[in-house]
Amino acid sequence: MSTNKPRVSVIMGSDSDLPVMNEACKMLDKFGIAFDVDFVSAHRTPHKIAEFVKKAEKQGIKAIVAGAGGAAHLPGMVASETCIPVIGVPCKSRISYNGMDSLLSIVQMPPGIPVATVGIDRADNAGILAAQIVATGDAEIFKKLKAYKDELRTMVETKSAKLQKEGHKKYLEQK
Amino acid sequence: MSTNKPRVSVIMGSDSDLPVMNEACKMLDKFGIAFDVDFVSAHRTPHKIAEFVKKAEKQGIKAIVAGAGGAAHLPGMVASETCIPVIGVPCKSRISYNGMDSLLSIVQMPPGIPVATVGIDRADNAGILAAQIVATGDAEIFKKLKAYKDELRTMVETKSAKLQKEGHKKYLEQK
Amino acid sequence: MSTNKPRVSVIMGSDSDLPVMNEACKMLDKFGIAFDVDFVSAHRTPHKIAEFVKKAEKQGIKAIVAGAGGAAHLPGMVASETCIPVIGVPCKSRISYNGMDSLLSIVQMPPGIPVATVGIDRADNAGILAAQIVATGDAEIFKKLKAYKDELRTMVETKSAKLQKEGHKKYLEQK
Amino acid sequence: MSTNKPRVSVIMGSDSDLPVMNEACKMLDKFGIAFDVDFVSAHRTPHKIAEFVKKAEKQGIKAIVAGAGGAAHLPGMVASETCIPVIGVPCKSRISYNGMDSLLSIVQMPPGIPVATVGIDRADNAGILAAQIVATGDAEIFKKLKAYKDELRTMVETKSAKLQKEGHKKYLEQK
Amino acid sequence: MSTNKPRVSVIMGSDSDLPVMNEACKMLDKFGIAFDVDFVSAHRTPHKIAEFVKKAEKQGIKAIVAGAGGAAHLPGMVASETCIPVIGVPCKSRISYNGMDSLLSIVQMPPGIPVATVGIDRADNAGILAAQIVATGDAEIFKKLKAYKDELRTMVETKSAKLQKEGHKKYLEQK
Amino acid sequence: MSTNKPRVSVIMGSDSDLPVMNEACKMLDKFGIAFDVDFVSAHRTPHKIAEFVKKAEKQGIKAIVAGAGGAAHLPGMVASETCIPVIGVPCKSRISYNGMDSLLSIVQMPPGIPVATVGIDRADNAGILAAQIVATGDAEIFKKLKAYKDELRTMVETKSAKLQKEGHKKYLEQK
Amino acid sequence: MSTNKPRVSVIMGSDSDLPVMNEACKMLDKFGIAFDVDFVSAHRTPHKIAEFVKKAEKQGIKAIVAGAGGAAHLPGMVASETCIPVIGVPCKSRISYNGMDSLLSIVQMPPGIPVATVGIDRADNAGILAAQIVATGDAEIFKKLKAYKDELRTMVETKSAKLQKEGHKKYLEQK
Amino acid sequence: MSTNKPRVSVIMGSDSDLPVMNEACKMLDKFGIAFDVDFVSAHRTPHKIAEFVKKAEKQGIKAIVAGAGGAAHLPGMVASETCIPVIGVPCKSRISYNGMDSLLSIVQMPPGIPVATVGIDRADNAGILAAQIVATGDAEIFKKLKAYKDELRTMVETKSAKLQKEGHKKYLEQK
Repeated sequence: MSTNKPRVSVIMGSDSDLPVMNEACKMLDKFGIAFDVDFVSAHRTPHKIAEFVKKAEKQGIKAIVAGAGGAAHLPGMVASETCIPVIGVPCKSRISYNGMDSLLSIVQMPPGIPVATVGIDRADNAGILAAQIVATGDAEIFKKLKAYKDELRTMVETKSAKLQKEGHKKYLEQK
Repeated sequence: MSTNKPRVSVIMGSDSDLPVMNEACKMLDKFGIAFDVDFVSAHRTPHKIAEFVKKAEKQGIKAIVAGAGGAAHLPGMVASETCIPVIGVPCKSRISYNGMDSLLSIVQMPPGIPVATVGIDRADNAGILAAQIVATGDAEIFKKLKAYKDELRTMVETKSAKLQKEGHKKYLEQK
Repeated sequence: MSTNKPRVSVIMGSDSDLPVMNEACKMLDKFGIAFDVDFVSAHRTPHKIAEFVKKAEKQGIKAIVAGAGGAAHLPGMVASETCIPVIGVPCKSRISYNGMDSLLSIVQMPPGIPVATVGIDRADNAGILAAQIVATGDAEIFKKLKAYKDELRTMVETKSAKLQKEGHKKYLEQK
Repeated sequence: MSTNKPRVSVIMGSDSDLPVMNEACKMLDKFGIAFDVDFVSAHRTPHKIAEFVKKAEKQGIKAIVAGAGGAAHLPGMVASETCIPVIGVPCKSRISYNGMDSLLSIVQMPPGIPVATVGIDRADNAGILAAQIVATGDAEIFKKLKAYKDELRTMVETKSAKLQKEGHKKYLEQK
Repeated sequence: MSTNKPRVSVIMGSDSDLPVMNEACKMLDKFGIAFDVDFVSAHRTPHKIAEFVKKAEKQGIKAIVAGAGGAAHLPGMVASETCIPVIGVPCKSRISYNGMDSLLSIVQMPPGIPVATVGIDRADNAGILAAQIVATGDAEIFKKLKAYKDELRTMVETKSAKLQKEGHKKYLEQK
Repeated sequence: MSTNKPRVSVIMGSDSDLPVMNEACKMLDKFGIAFDVDFVSAHRTPHKIAEFVKKAEKQGIKAIVAGAGGAAHLPGMVASETCIPVIGVPCKSRISYNGMDSLLSIVQMPPGIPVATVGIDRADNAGILAAQIVATGDAEIFKKLKAYKDELRTMVETKSAKLQKEGHKKYLEQK
Repeated sequence: MSTNKPRVSVIMGSDSDLPVMNEACKMLDKFGIAFDVDFVSAHRTPHKIAEFVKKAEKQGIKAIVAGAGGAAHLPGMVASETCIPVIGVPCKSRISYNGMDSLLSIVQMPPGIPVATVGIDRADNAGILAAQIVATGDAEIFKKLKAYKDELRTMVETKSAKLQKEGHKKYLEQK
Repeated sequence: MSTNKPRVSVIMGSDSDLPVMNEACKMLDKFGIAFDVDFVSAHRTPHKIAEFVKKAEKQGIKAIVAGAGGAAHLPGMVASETCIPVIGVPCKSRISYNGMDSLLSIVQMPPGIPVATVGIDRADNAGILAAQIVATGDAEIFKKLKAYKDELRTMVETKSAKLQKEGHKKYLEQK
């Protein structure tokens, strides 16, 4: 399978969310999953949502990562148009109430239209979740995800070993 | 002006919101303002929003009252499609987190796309606000609104007079 | 119609709210709607509210934008005196609990006295909402509002096109 | 001093708050402090506030107990008109968001205009606080308040003695 | 492909969550997706998590739906052990603070370990999301999901038609 | 009456609260009310509370202003020992959860033991409230409080006049 | 060691908390740990706290379980008087704001004076925690606690086995 | 008893929590209680928890202090594996929602598995609580804890004396 064909779409309502949403891109890059990125505003370009979805379905996109802040309607509106899994990232952007409005606007969807919600500003986790969904049909990606889990474990273990060796006072000084 | 032509639209995402939203209808009836009522679901009938708005603009609708619960996207999505004032009613329905999710999902709109939000389950106030907007171009309605304000004042004054006459203990017993 | 006669009033309780409330003024300027601005404090100049309202009604003001923070009583107290639509802006000023107190103090009005509430510190949206109300009786303003909606859409589309051309990494570097 | 002349005023915005606010009356009765009771709605009878305050000042009222729910403006608006201490009772009435909106709308007053706020639905404590204020100039009332404190202590001690005698299992069965 | 081999696992910490979590099962049944159900308690049977995960990976489970209430650790602890997508359902059970503790305990996962969170008590949406993930590799299921979306739309349209025919007053009476 | 004898006591749990609580002192100074200031920690010097109260009652103290942060027990514990009105100031100090913990710990007192609570960090209002309580028995202070109210009104009116003269743009530039 | 000598004290501010706090007693009974129970009100019997503590220290009490609701001061005030570990139970009693005020009033203690806080209304866990503290010096109790952990595990496993045997539909019907 | 053998374990999920958790270490140092420190991540090194606990039980550890942020699972997962008292510190780290998610994830444990929770970022109090638990079996430590309480009291008294001598204005200037 050519990795050039995008398998995940990353969208957000505004370019002010790009620094946060870029963390999803980095994760997809890390796992070698091709993706496209776009700005789709639920409130400013509502008609683009249906178009975007049609293209995504035609491309065989496996997961859509959608970030939004405040009264964050983008993930839910995309989910209303497609059966591709939609992953919502509540952004704590300038217009948001500490991210709680974004979280509730994304997660509290009505019956029939789920959005897979991750933590506030946790686009990295959204990227990983998209990779996990891709991995349900791609053993290669699954192996990479397992390797990443090992990496995380090793990182903690390395730090733990350093802590045991140096003691917490010295460890703290070096931070 | 024929009062048969609707000047306000009342919409909601689900018929479970009708008992609450009916309070808006009652207020519009009270002020003699014709209106239509419909179910438009942001998540289940997303394409209907644009249609609904087109019709509303053609009809010369002056205000749209939109009620929704949970991740309440309906008012905001309607506002994204039209410049008619949209009044949002956060519903504390079965799927909502005490109405706080509905409130934040409706009120915290991004710059450029306002929704005129009223209190949780306060469809009556949404109906009055719609009438106030109609009244900015209709002196007759404005007069009716003033009369209603007088009514409210008189109601409090009547109760106050009764309280002064009977004392609070007796008043309480009769409740 | 002479645009010199104010059609909207913008008021706030304290001059510390002016930087926020100025965003409403900018929007009204943008749509060519004349307005006046004043400080009216619900708690420090309570008697001025009735006076202010009387003048507004005489002038034919179509909408009143009122901003306040903390136990934000101004929008509600103005609404208690008039049937002109009142738009409330919850300000996250120095005295406020992250704007949540302002939001609840403004939006949770009792039956009979609506305040059209916008998002926390979203005076820009309050200005647009006021313009939308004016536009219900002024086709010229309605056209300008539509043009503004187009502007917003074009802005997103331009950014989207740039993103497609440059890729998200380069786009991000240039921010 | 004749106890017939009211020394405290108890007001509320709506007769739906009377069952809660009656607890303040009971406390004032208990301490033998004359008081009057009235309905004064910040939003429905705004002009009555100034009148009410003028009368209260003429009568030499020592404290005003004001209860309200939702966007509870009554205590703050009364405080804006007088220098008599105003005690605010946040009511968890039908229109309120669990009383949190009432609490924030009452307690978060701007600099210069304090409201002495008690707990949600704690009109009993508002009555006691009013009595404490009266007692700063009336040694008789102060003595009664001290006796009430003794009563409360004795009540706990009596229950404690019963618990020690019977054990917690039997005590619980008898409840 | 035999539909008898489970493709989704539904787990929960306690049998008190079964009435809520059964809604996920109903949805999976509706889409003809085989699944197994089990009780796995993060706090009472911590060792079972690793076992459960090993078996799930061997079976080729595509998605794990995990419901929990209060300090809801189950979804996150399962996610810490596997790269299969984990869908978390915050349950508003007896031990929970209105479901907000469950929501935050599930959604606010650290970087590296995502949980796909749905709304409070929305196990139905968790079931649909699991089906959507299965559908990324099964066109048959994708078709069924689309048909369900049509069903939802038709349901709203049927109700809307009835409302237009009968009017909102009669509609309300019949509810 | 000699103004040297303290009529109000200002206490706080920690010297880190002094910058906030000093605003109460400034207000008392402004109204010419003598007061004393002390550190009394509910948790570190619990025995001092009873002592402090005894002295305050002997001195004829009319109101006690008590500030505290976090699990703010000081105002309530003082109130448990005396019938002198206690005014609580919820401090948003280093140890507090945005002041919400302090607010709830102070305002939600059990029946029988009121604390007159003011807004978060609003020690200025606590000072004014103390002065209002003193003023119930001192016409001189009442007059000063009225003059202060006039001052506040004049301040708003002066700013309003300046705004009318210069326009909001110029006014804003000068801030 | 005679089990008749109390090793834990269970106290609460009011007998209305006894039904909740009884769950702590049941747990202590289960582990065979003698305890005494009493009503000690921080606000109504403040002087009793020091007395109670003195007695507890003399008796060699190993842990104090203290339950309270609303502005829950009892656990913190006891902790201010002793170095015996104090376990606080936030009670969602009649006077409380859903238990959140109780939780914050108990857990957010200032530096130097910890209270070991358990979940809202979770007196059962407070009893177990007290037993765990006793068990740090009593291997017998530690063994009983381990047995209880096994019991909990077995209970889940038994239910799981039943679920596997009967299927979730039949299991649900029998509930 | 040799103080070299650790009697308390301090663990945390990530080295980013070390600056906060170090306050627990400082307190244990102050009371002369040996302890060990380690990184144990509930989500990255789940298998290490059981190992860690086994070692702790063998060493005779009397209390485990566990800090975590966001969906803070570490304290609860450790508590699920052992009957040693676990003290949870909710950390307001980068990934947390102001510490409220951490607090609820730690304190709202299900029946049977208590975690002794302290205030947000209050690792100092966690250290003291651990010392108090150790002190239930070590009179020497209990004496040191009492001395520390005296220290705290003296500190307040010294500051109070300075305040009485210098007055609050001068005191404030010197801060």
